[in-house]
Amino acid sequence: MRILLIGASGTIGNAIVKEFGTDHEIIRAGRNGADVEVDFTSPESIKKMYEAVGKVDAVVSAAGRAQFAPLEELTPELNETGIMSKLKGQVNLVLLGIPFVNDGGSFTLTSGVMMDDPILKGASAAMANGGIQSFVRASSIEMPRGIRINNVSPNVLIESMDKYAEFFQGFKPVAAADAALAYKKSVLGAQTGQTYKVY
Amino acid sequence: MRILLIGASGTIGNAIVKEFGTDHEIIRAGRNGADVEVDFTSPESIKKMYEAVGKVDAVVSAAGRAQFAPLEELTPELNETGIMSKLKGQVNLVLLGIPFVNDGGSFTLTSGVMMDDPILKGASAAMANGGIQSFVRASSIEMPRGIRINNVSPNVLIESMDKYAEFFQGFKPVAAADAALAYKKSVLGAQTGQTYKVY
Ligand SMILES: NC(=O)c1ccc[n+]([C@@H]2O[C@H](COP(=O)([O-])OP(=O)(O)OC[C@H]3O[C@@H](n4cnc5c(N)ncnc54)[C@H](OP(=O)(O)O)[C@@H]3O)[C@@H](O)[C@H]2O)c1
Ligand SMILES: NC(=O)c1ccc[n+]([C@@H]2O[C@H](COP(=O)([O-])OP(=O)(O)OC[C@H]3O[C@@H](n4cnc5c(N)ncnc54)[C@H](OP(=O)(O)O)[C@@H]3O)[C@@H](O)[C@H]2O)c1
Repeated sequence: MRILLIGASGTIGNAIVKEFGTDHEIIRAGRNGADVEVDFTSPESIKKMYEAVGKVDAVVSAAGRAQFAPLEELTPELNETGIMSKLKGQVNLVLLGIPFVNDGGSFTLTSGVMMDDPILKGASAAMANGGIQSFVRASSIEMPRGIRINNVSPNVLIESMDKYAEFFQGFKPVAAADAALAYKKSVLGAQTGQTYKVY
Repeated sequence: MRILLIGASGTIGNAIVKEFGTDHEIIRAGRNGADVEVDFTSPESIKKMYEAVGKVDAVVSAAGRAQFAPLEELTPELNETGIMSKLKGQVNLVLLGIPFVNDGGSFTLTSGVMMDDPILKGASAAMANGGIQSFVRASSIEMPRGIRINNVSPNVLIESMDKYAEFFQGFKPVAAADAALAYKKSVLGAQTGQTYKVY
């Protein structure tokens, strides 16, 4: 399969690359040093990426930022990061990508555990994650040409505990390799509209 | 109680006014012909509303638009309506409203059945609804001074079937008065972080 992976250089992206191995062609996308450059906060940049890459069998997004901030310090402006990146960035990969996905292909987006099991400072990310889950469920029933769409919602990763341990007190982190399996299930399986909760 | 109701002139807003009756002071907010003017797609307008109204015991939002469009016609631009109105409009009512809500007060936002039970043309609204549900769950654990927050997710209303019947084929609509009860449960009850599904 020809798989376009946005966020290939990240913690989850790397684990996805490893899990898919050499049986598939992975096209790495990101803002820096990837096979194809994209900043998915810009619809124009997304369009350019798809035009450069052409037809693919799967689009996988393992990217998306949101601001961590205490609720009382979360301004509409700080909340924009989650809106622009995690939410609209991923949704726009789908809205603009449908013509570039082959019949029977798929989209796989990423949310995260905070939408179900909230943490301090996590309201903006939770908002974006919940939006992704419902968008995936709803858009799945309208995908043309047998295209599927799923969402992977990972727990905090063992590999990210150096960055995130203070936010995820008492959470049992999962291995990035276990999260990567869910992306494989989405891309190589036949389900659609699902959120795979890796927790 | 002093209750600020955004969307008071709408189908749900009217039912809420009726349900709360004369035991409470309801301040009606909306773009046109209300006690206080607000366009909640603008943070500036939200700030002005709160400054004009002052302290309240409850903020209830029964407003929020999203574009209905077939997935393949849903552009990033059309999706903006749901982002600006249903999602960010409601989230910003909370982010900017906390200082104006009395100790032990509450926020109540509105989502809708489409996030759980998707319909054709409903991906944008579902996205916004899912974002509201997760934002409410996550922000509830960080509310200061005993302030609570809940979300009411109504089914399509009997009173709206003239407008929406073609979209909600096979759905069993609920009475606006039944949806209004959930707002009362949220405002006068003690739960927080909940989504009350009126379906
Ligand atoms: N790590 C965790 O514990 C965890 C748990 C649950 C969910 N998640 C979610 O999973 C996703 C990936 O997490 P991660 O930890 O793997 O992230 P990461 O290590 O920070 O990597 C992020 C990746 O996304 C790319 N990227 C960032 N902004 C982008 C943009 N605007 N346009 C295009 N590409 C962009 C980055 O590449 P460039 O910098 O080159 O653009 C990088 O490849 C995030 O949404 C995160 O919230 C992570
Ligand atoms: N009706 C249903 O069957 C149903 C079912 C489930 C969920 N919902 C959701 O419930 C909410 C209300 O639905 P409804 O049918 O009662 O709506 P509606 O009858 O169209 O009324 C909308 C209300 O919101 C106000 N409003 C609209 N845009 C606004 C803005 N930018 N800033 C401030 N106020 C604004 C309107 O007043 P002005 O025009 O004066 O601003 C009006 O009072 C919507 O989010 C809808 O998606 C509705």
